[in-house]
Amino acid sequence: MGNSFGKIFSITTFGESHGPAIGVIIDGCPAGLDIDEAYIQSELDRRKPGQSKITTQRKEEDKFKILSGVFDGKSTGAPIAIEIENTDQRSKDYSHIAESFRPSHADYTYEKKYGVRDYRGGGRSSARETAARVAAGAIAKLLLRKSGVEIGAFVSQVGNIVAPHYSKLDLSKTEDNIVRCPDAATAEKMIARIDEVRLQRDTIGGVVTCVVKNSPVGLGEPVFDKLHAALGYAMLGINAVKGFEYGSGFEGTKLLGSQHNDEFYNDEERIRTRTNHSGGVQGGISNGEDIYFNVAFKPVATIMQDQQSVNKAGEEVTVSGKGRHDPCVVPRAVPIVEAMAALVMADFLLLARTSKL
Amino acid sequence: MGNSFGKIFSITTFGESHGPAIGVIIDGCPAGLDIDEAYIQSELDRRKPGQSKITTQRKEEDKFKILSGVFDGKSTGAPIAIEIENTDQRSKDYSHIAESFRPSHADYTYEKKYGVRDYRGGGRSSARETAARVAAGAIAKLLLRKSGVEIGAFVSQVGNIVAPHYSKLDLSKTEDNIVRCPDAATAEKMIARIDEVRLQRDTIGGVVTCVVKNSPVGLGEPVFDKLHAALGYAMLGINAVKGFEYGSGFEGTKLLGSQHNDEFYNDEERIRTRTNHSGGVQGGISNGEDIYFNVAFKPVATIMQDQQSVNKAGEEVTVSGKGRHDPCVVPRAVPIVEAMAALVMADFLLLARTSKL
Amino acid sequence: MGNSFGKIFSITTFGESHGPAIGVIIDGCPAGLDIDEAYIQSELDRRKPGQSKITTQRKEEDKFKILSGVFDGKSTGAPIAIEIENTDQRSKDYSHIAESFRPSHADYTYEKKYGVRDYRGGGRSSARETAARVAAGAIAKLLLRKSGVEIGAFVSQVGNIVAPHYSKLDLSKTEDNIVRCPDAATAEKMIARIDEVRLQRDTIGGVVTCVVKNSPVGLGEPVFDKLHAALGYAMLGINAVKGFEYGSGFEGTKLLGSQHNDEFYNDEERIRTRTNHSGGVQGGISNGEDIYFNVAFKPVATIMQDQQSVNKAGEEVTVSGKGRHDPCVVPRAVPIVEAMAALVMADFLLLARTSKL
Amino acid sequence: MGNSFGKIFSITTFGESHGPAIGVIIDGCPAGLDIDEAYIQSELDRRKPGQSKITTQRKEEDKFKILSGVFDGKSTGAPIAIEIENTDQRSKDYSHIAESFRPSHADYTYEKKYGVRDYRGGGRSSARETAARVAAGAIAKLLLRKSGVEIGAFVSQVGNIVAPHYSKLDLSKTEDNIVRCPDAATAEKMIARIDEVRLQRDTIGGVVTCVVKNSPVGLGEPVFDKLHAALGYAMLGINAVKGFEYGSGFEGTKLLGSQHNDEFYNDEERIRTRTNHSGGVQGGISNGEDIYFNVAFKPVATIMQDQQSVNKAGEEVTVSGKGRHDPCVVPRAVPIVEAMAALVMADFLLLARTSKL
Repeated sequence: MGNSFGKIFSITTFGESHGPAIGVIIDGCPAGLDIDEAYIQSELDRRKPGQSKITTQRKEEDKFKILSGVFDGKSTGAPIAIEIENTDQRSKDYSHIAESFRPSHADYTYEKKYGVRDYRGGGRSSARETAARVAAGAIAKLLLRKSGVEIGAFVSQVGNIVAPHYSKLDLSKTEDNIVRCPDAATAEKMIARIDEVRLQRDTIGGVVTCVVKNSPVGLGEPVFDKLHAALGYAMLGINAVKGFEYGSGFEGTKLLGSQHNDEFYNDEERIRTRTNHSGGVQGGISNGEDIYFNVAFKPVATIMQDQQSVNKAGEEVTVSGKGRHDPCVVPRAVPIVEAMAALVMADFLLLARTSKL
Repeated sequence: MGNSFGKIFSITTFGESHGPAIGVIIDGCPAGLDIDEAYIQSELDRRKPGQSKITTQRKEEDKFKILSGVFDGKSTGAPIAIEIENTDQRSKDYSHIAESFRPSHADYTYEKKYGVRDYRGGGRSSARETAARVAAGAIAKLLLRKSGVEIGAFVSQVGNIVAPHYSKLDLSKTEDNIVRCPDAATAEKMIARIDEVRLQRDTIGGVVTCVVKNSPVGLGEPVFDKLHAALGYAMLGINAVKGFEYGSGFEGTKLLGSQHNDEFYNDEERIRTRTNHSGGVQGGISNGEDIYFNVAFKPVATIMQDQQSVNKAGEEVTVSGKGRHDPCVVPRAVPIVEAMAALVMADFLLLARTSKL
Repeated sequence: MGNSFGKIFSITTFGESHGPAIGVIIDGCPAGLDIDEAYIQSELDRRKPGQSKITTQRKEEDKFKILSGVFDGKSTGAPIAIEIENTDQRSKDYSHIAESFRPSHADYTYEKKYGVRDYRGGGRSSARETAARVAAGAIAKLLLRKSGVEIGAFVSQVGNIVAPHYSKLDLSKTEDNIVRCPDAATAEKMIARIDEVRLQRDTIGGVVTCVVKNSPVGLGEPVFDKLHAALGYAMLGINAVKGFEYGSGFEGTKLLGSQHNDEFYNDEERIRTRTNHSGGVQGGISNGEDIYFNVAFKPVATIMQDQQSVNKAGEEVTVSGKGRHDPCVVPRAVPIVEAMAALVMADFLLLARTSKL
Repeated sequence: MGNSFGKIFSITTFGESHGPAIGVIIDGCPAGLDIDEAYIQSELDRRKPGQSKITTQRKEEDKFKILSGVFDGKSTGAPIAIEIENTDQRSKDYSHIAESFRPSHADYTYEKKYGVRDYRGGGRSSARETAARVAAGAIAKLLLRKSGVEIGAFVSQVGNIVAPHYSKLDLSKTEDNIVRCPDAATAEKMIARIDEVRLQRDTIGGVVTCVVKNSPVGLGEPVFDKLHAALGYAMLGINAVKGFEYGSGFEGTKLLGSQHNDEFYNDEERIRTRTNHSGGVQGGISNGEDIYFNVAFKPVATIMQDQQSVNKAGEEVTVSGKGRHDPCVVPRAVPIVEAMAALVMADFLLLARTSKL
């Protein structure tokens, strides 16, 4: 019921913000892959709270434990279960939402859908669940590396501050600053803006751009499971995401076909395109060019201000902002976007083994 | 392998542009639904080619035949198979693409993925496949009507011409003009622009906006199968789609949380929100407000101009535009967007029956 | 909802006994496979009614038509749709069951589950649906042959008449007689017994044994999707099947471990087992030995005798046997068992491509 | 890849015999179910090793921990993760199988399929994995009880010792003896036989019979997902199972239709059958009568005797029996059979909510 993702390389996550632990089972990871635990931890560290002044000051160490599926450092083909304990739970912080519905949160819809609700910290709707995806995505990345595929995301927009097009950036510099924008000048402005918003006890939205390099040609299934449809589905399943576009995206709708088409040429025995409005995907299948896409994140719903709302009894109430939250989610969303992209690419990489005789 | 869609109310499509027929099997349609064949045909007619001067002049009557699953006018719970014959095939029109790769088409990627390729009219990658989806979507709409859910899409943008926000439009007027924009003044401009582009032997992109009214509260599954993620996946699986956004979408990223949050209030014993940046979905679950989203379509790749490309042997060649194609895909995409939205909503409507004791 | 089968090489069937057609969509057949239409027809001919004096005298030619997914004689990777028209429908033969529930048929349970029911010829519950499986299975067999895998089933029991163990039979002789038992002497007795039962206006049950030779080592997934579990699931989904056992089966429960274990030895650089109580599957995974299993079929429920029953109003009624039915289903079940086995093996063959780096 | 089971009420298990823990994620449990932890533990206790003189003397407490999906004692609709620590691991006991393939175990096939193998205690192929199923099955049973469905299994055969037909037994007495046969006289013989075999350092097979009472009419999906096909698939996925039959089973193949058919009658406004050769399932759908089936278990492959085999290098070796194993698996298999049956029934119970308007 929506807690699994993927066909061959598939994951199932579990866990609430304030339960004993969250985690994930990865099923379908091919046997024989070196499971680099230090790498998995480094990916979790990129997502964890409290990593800088512009993220939530909540502290979770996000130490993971592999419970199965790995033997002598290698995947065995059995499901890989990963558990991450919840260590900073402060349940009392959240008692105020037991009866009221916070605006633009999932409180109301969960209540209506399920009748019961683990209100502590948002329960299952908490973005804490994405830590499990990052752990699984790290393993997907290890698998992809074997085929040379590299995935890099970065913050390309905060509010009205927009970074240059990815093709003009050096993506190896993404981790050089706390906002994860590889353009230093833009990064500085973004950080200042987030800090300003934080002091206003408000939040702000942004965009993460992701680039997949060196994808083999032929990944993606026509019709419903087009490569970009799977990527879009993956991204839209991340908390706070409002939109997805790849290649020329929404701007491309303004172009003429003669402007938009990507002409093919032969580049030393490898067929390539001169432009890449297609975003590396044609007819739903990768063509070997860079796959790139944008993911829109709304401003975090939890603000440190009073808001009007209603409670379970239908009475109008004032909800006050409490707890420790991110003033802007995009810096920490970067590894999540990468993880989900990696899960999609790994799955299609394996599926593609079955497309021909 | 990507030709099925949906969990409970699920469809599997088949067929190529120039084979004997295309079609769909709908599995999981509840028994007892009145299958209104005239309605299905009317939906197919909205999508069929040759319906106006701004669509392709190709002629397909798109008459469908139900082969199973309906008895005495009602669904029986058995799979409903629908077949649509291909009647206007003119295979010779397409012989020029047997050896060459048309820019921004699926020729190259299919060739690489499968080794063989039905090049006639694009084969499986042809948008002709979407007729099957429209037929299935019509049945999904019939099911949704039983719960009061109504779905209406319209053309909100062609090139740079943009319609007003949906909340200012009367969606019952969508079918009043050939471009399917309910605002007459904007429609006129759009039609003129498409006609201009057509005479230039070029094509142009656009945006379709879709609104789902009267959705029950509680549809959608948290985490990966959020309602909007499923809608996005459905839309991105339509040919030529480059982007999806719902509610505040990409523009919402520029807002502050205090501007973006939708406050709850009690409207005569029904909990509602004062604004609807959420687009009717919170935490991946419908909240009863209008669900609305935008779908970006690139300009059609087939233009009536010469373009540089390569052939299967890797030699550089000139590809000339031939055949009969749409100068702008969005007018005919409107029923396709509605159909895919209906399939998603019908599926989640049934799934929601299992979420509580 | 139960009309699809398989993960990679998957099929979805449709059609009722008395609708215009039945058929199947095969999704996930690898591209590049030669689709031998004469072979598909020959498989359908083995299943078709009216083929001998011991089968139903109903006549269906079971001519099939491929609607998609094949180009220039080869699979393209697109879904392969196959349609078989219903030509001998005589709807009036079945009017007597519109209101009454035939004993041991699906009339009552369909009525209760769905509220509506296509009662003509059993509708969806008719074994006619298995023709679609045989067509799909023929393509699976063509794929398996590329890997050297051969599947042969035969009638090993009719009533109390039992054929010798498969290892003592020449399976190439299965088609030498109309009951499809490769042992001529046993076949003669079986035919006489079926004929006797037919004259008594009764029916009789039997067993089909199936042998898969030359399976690669490594097919099957541990835990829930063990190779034999998938085979059992496939067989139990065939109409009238009551049981499944593989290798030593139910008899093996009487043995001691020291009798039952299959010792390994090295046969010219290939590891083999001296005995094969395991039936070619260990831990759910093929070990390269013959995979063999038995499938129990009950006597056909339609008998040419009066039986007590109830009608939709709950009144007790007499149901008289009408129509043309098989006195014993197993001779015609042989190609169905093979087809389902082929679908399982083809699917696992493709899945196995993803199990290692 | 085979580690998940079920469509709506679905489980995914993880864990090896000698890893830190095993466990399961249950997805799709409806919200609002009281999760009775004492009941879950009591079910695990029925399966745990060391419970009597005729089971393995290995000790595992099998204490479980719920990590998610339960709040204030009720299911929330979120995935329920259950973890069971491995406490008695003695890895050195298993070093002898690192290089050799034990006869009729999964050592050889895992090695071939995956290239790497966690040989400690059989790793993923160990029946220890079934503890996770029992925990999940306990929750399925709690759900089924809400609809009045009761599931009871018992040992109906050990070697040649056979219990009377279930309809002549009082199933409430199953737990009265250590072999779990409700017929005291038969139980005594079975226990003596198992003890005898154990002293011979050998093992013996047997049969578990399972009865599902009070099933609603209408569970099961026609065609591939017939109720009995799903039950068979579930049972054949349990370690050491060699066969499955329901209702009249293999014996029914010897009957005539006139003997086998179950006549309907009207029993105080409820339609019932006079006999139940159908085993409560007609056309793949439950008819409200008892659902009953037999599951054949081979003798445990681990015997305390020397056997001939080969090692990874292909050299012939002697494998000696070591470790602590069950002389007969069926007493401990009873709760596993019940658990798998419960998972199937719960899933179909939820699916059936979607079959009609």
